[in-house]
Amino acid sequence: MIYLDHAAATPILPAVIEALHNAQSEHFANASAAHGLGRKQLKEVENCRQIFSKILKANDEDQLIFTASATESNNLLIKGLELSAGDRVLYCQADHPSLEMPVRSLEKSGVIAEKIELDQLGQVDLNQLAERLDSSVKLLVLGHVNNLSGCIQPVAQVGQLLSELAPGAHFHLDAVQSFGKIELASSYDSLSLSSHKIGGPKGAALLHLKKEIRLTPLLDGGGQEGGLRSSTLAYPLIKGFSLAAEQILEGQVSCYEKVSLLNGYLREQLQKSHRSLQIPFEQAQTSPYVLMFIVPGISSDVILRHLGEKEIYLSSSSACSSKIKAKNPVFSALGLPEKYHKNVLRLSLSGGTTEAELELFLEEWRRLIADIGYLFKA
Amino acid sequence: MIYLDHAAATPILPAVIEALHNAQSEHFANASAAHGLGRKQLKEVENCRQIFSKILKANDEDQLIFTASATESNNLLIKGLELSAGDRVLYCQADHPSLEMPVRSLEKSGVIAEKIELDQLGQVDLNQLAERLDSSVKLLVLGHVNNLSGCIQPVAQVGQLLSELAPGAHFHLDAVQSFGKIELASSYDSLSLSSHKIGGPKGAALLHLKKEIRLTPLLDGGGQEGGLRSSTLAYPLIKGFSLAAEQILEGQVSCYEKVSLLNGYLREQLQKSHRSLQIPFEQAQTSPYVLMFIVPGISSDVILRHLGEKEIYLSSSSACSSKIKAKNPVFSALGLPEKYHKNVLRLSLSGGTTEAELELFLEEWRRLIADIGYLFKA
Repeated sequence: MIYLDHAAATPILPAVIEALHNAQSEHFANASAAHGLGRKQLKEVENCRQIFSKILKANDEDQLIFTASATESNNLLIKGLELSAGDRVLYCQADHPSLEMPVRSLEKSGVIAEKIELDQLGQVDLNQLAERLDSSVKLLVLGHVNNLSGCIQPVAQVGQLLSELAPGAHFHLDAVQSFGKIELASSYDSLSLSSHKIGGPKGAALLHLKKEIRLTPLLDGGGQEGGLRSSTLAYPLIKGFSLAAEQILEGQVSCYEKVSLLNGYLREQLQKSHRSLQIPFEQAQTSPYVLMFIVPGISSDVILRHLGEKEIYLSSSSACSSKIKAKNPVFSALGLPEKYHKNVLRLSLSGGTTEAELELFLEEWRRLIADIGYLFKA
Repeated sequence: MIYLDHAAATPILPAVIEALHNAQSEHFANASAAHGLGRKQLKEVENCRQIFSKILKANDEDQLIFTASATESNNLLIKGLELSAGDRVLYCQADHPSLEMPVRSLEKSGVIAEKIELDQLGQVDLNQLAERLDSSVKLLVLGHVNNLSGCIQPVAQVGQLLSELAPGAHFHLDAVQSFGKIELASSYDSLSLSSHKIGGPKGAALLHLKKEIRLTPLLDGGGQEGGLRSSTLAYPLIKGFSLAAEQILEGQVSCYEKVSLLNGYLREQLQKSHRSLQIPFEQAQTSPYVLMFIVPGISSDVILRHLGEKEIYLSSSSACSSKIKAKNPVFSALGLPEKYHKNVLRLSLSGGTTEAELELFLEEWRRLIADIGYLFKA
C-alpha cells in the first residue's frame, strides 16, 4: 500500500500505538475520581498538558483545553465567544468547513459573517482584509495551511493588521495542517490542533487560548477542563496525542527538508508526465506536505479508482467535502475554473513518506497516463 | 488491586483492547475519504451503527449519532432542540450534572428549568411530576439509574405520564449507568450511552434519537453523522464501543444475577461490620451494580486514603462531583442529612467483580473498622 492522503488522516506512530495500548490496558480509572488511581491519571493528563504548554510557549494565564476534535476546538472558540448581533466575524474563503460553518451558524443571532477572498497565490488578500478591518470586527478565523491547496497564510501579517486596525478582535488560528510541519505561528489569540493529523489517535485535539478569555462551554456537566469542556477525560487519547506532538516536532526540521525535496521531485515528474497537467500553486507559497494538481478532462474519481486498485491512495478533495460532486465552492474560492472541478487531485505526504513509495506511485501514474492520457483536454 | 469504582470508569474488556489495538495499528484512514481505505472504514462505522441499531431496536427513521461522551450526547440533545423562551424543561434532582447543567444553561434564553424532586426511595416523585406536566413542558431529562444512589427510575411510568399529560414533550433518557446492567427502557424519545462505563474506551458515546427530530448541531463543519456531529469519525473508538456493548449485553442476565448476590452479601456484611453504618437505599429499588453507604462520624476521605494504601479503590461521590467538599447538593437531593455528607461511600461493581475481591475488601474493611470504628457517631 502507498498512502498519500496524510492531510486527511495519518497512520498512528509506532511509539504512540504502544502508548495507547499501555494506557488502554492499564490506566482505566476516571481522572476525576478522588482515589489514588484517579489522581494518578489526572496527574498524567496534566503532564500531557504541560508538554503542549512548553511546545506552544504558553503563559501561565493561558488555557489549554483538550477536546475530541479540531472541529470541536473551532466550534468551542467561535460559538463560545458569544458574540452579539451586529458584531462582524471574518473568515477565509476555502478554509476548512469547521471554520466557516460555525461562523455562518452565528448569523442566526445577527452576527455578520464576512468572507475574505484569496489572491492568485491562494493567500488571504491582505489589501481586502485591511479595508474590512475596524473596531466592529470581533473575530477573525483562519487556517494556517489550507488543507487542499497547501497554501500557507501570512499569519504574522494578518496578526499585525489586526492589532493595528481592529485591536479588540480575537484572532483564531487553525493549525491542524501546519503543526509539526512548518514553523509554528505565534501571533494568534487561540489555536486549534488535531491529533490524527500528526500520527496520534483520532478523538483528541486541543484548543490553546492565549489571553484570559471567557468562553461559554459547548458541553456543560461535570466541569472538567476548567469548566470549559465537561466530559470524562480520555486519558489514553490525550497521552497518545501529546506523544505524537513531541515526536513530530522532534523530526520537524529534517522532515521538512526531506519532504520539500520529495515535493519538488513530484512536481517535476508530474509535470513531465503530460503537458496538460496543471499544478496551480507554486512550491514557494505552499506547505511541502500538500500538492494539488489538475488533470483536465480526466475525472479524478476514475483516477482514484484506478490507483486504488493498485493500493495507492490519494484524494480528490478534502475528506470533509468528499461528497461534493459538481461545482465545488472551495475549488472556486481557490481560483480553479469550474471546468476543472472534477479533475482535481491532492497528494499529501508525511515525514515518513519515502522516495521509493513515490517512485512506485509515479510508475503507476505514468502507466495510467499512457493508458488514458488521450483523454486529457488542455 | 481491588477496583470497586466501575460507575466512574471500567477497565476495558480484553477483546476490546485487542480490537482497539488492531484498529489503531491498521485502520488509520479518514472514514470520509473517497478512496478505498476511507470507504472501507466508513462501512465499518456503519456496521457498528447497525449493532446499536439492533440492540436498541431502532426504526429506520431513527438516528444513531456517535459522539465523544455521554455529556456531549446529553448537551447535543438538550441544546439542539433549540427551545424557546417560556418553554418548560423538567430535570431530576440528583441526576448527573451533564443533565442538569445543560438544562440550566437554557435559562439565559428564557427557558424555564424546573427540578423534579425525589421521594424517600430515591425515585422521581410521580405525583409531583403529574402535577407539573402540561403542554408547556417541552422536554424532560432523566437518568435511568442514579450514578450515586443506584436508584432505578420508573421510566415506563414517567413515559406514560408524559404521553398522557404532555404529549408534545420530548423524553430524554440517560442510560449510562443502566445499559447492559438492567433491563433496557424503551419509552424514550432519545437516549444517551457511554462507552467507558461498559468496558469500552473513553472518548466514545452514542445518542439515539427515536423520532424524526430536528436538532441543531453543537459541532458544525464537515457534516459527518448526518450533519449532526461534524468531526472525523474516530473509528477505533466506535469499534471498541460497539464490541463492548455486544459483550456486556451477552452477559447481562448472568452478571445481573451474580452481582445481585454480591450486592446482597456486601450489604449484609457491611451492616454487620458496625451497627452505626447506614445503607440509605434498599436493594429492591436500586441497581445491584451500585451500593451507597454512610459511615456517620468518619470522613470518607480518610477511608478512601486508608483503603487506597491497600490498593482498594472505591468512591465517596461521583467522579464528576468529586471536588465538592462541604454540603453536597446531590446528597441533599437524595435525602441524606447534611451531617452525613462527608461520610458517604459508594461501591460500584461490574460483571467481572469476584466474590474473592469482595472478601479481600471486607477483610480490609473490618480491620479498618476495628482500628477507627470508635469514631462512629450514631
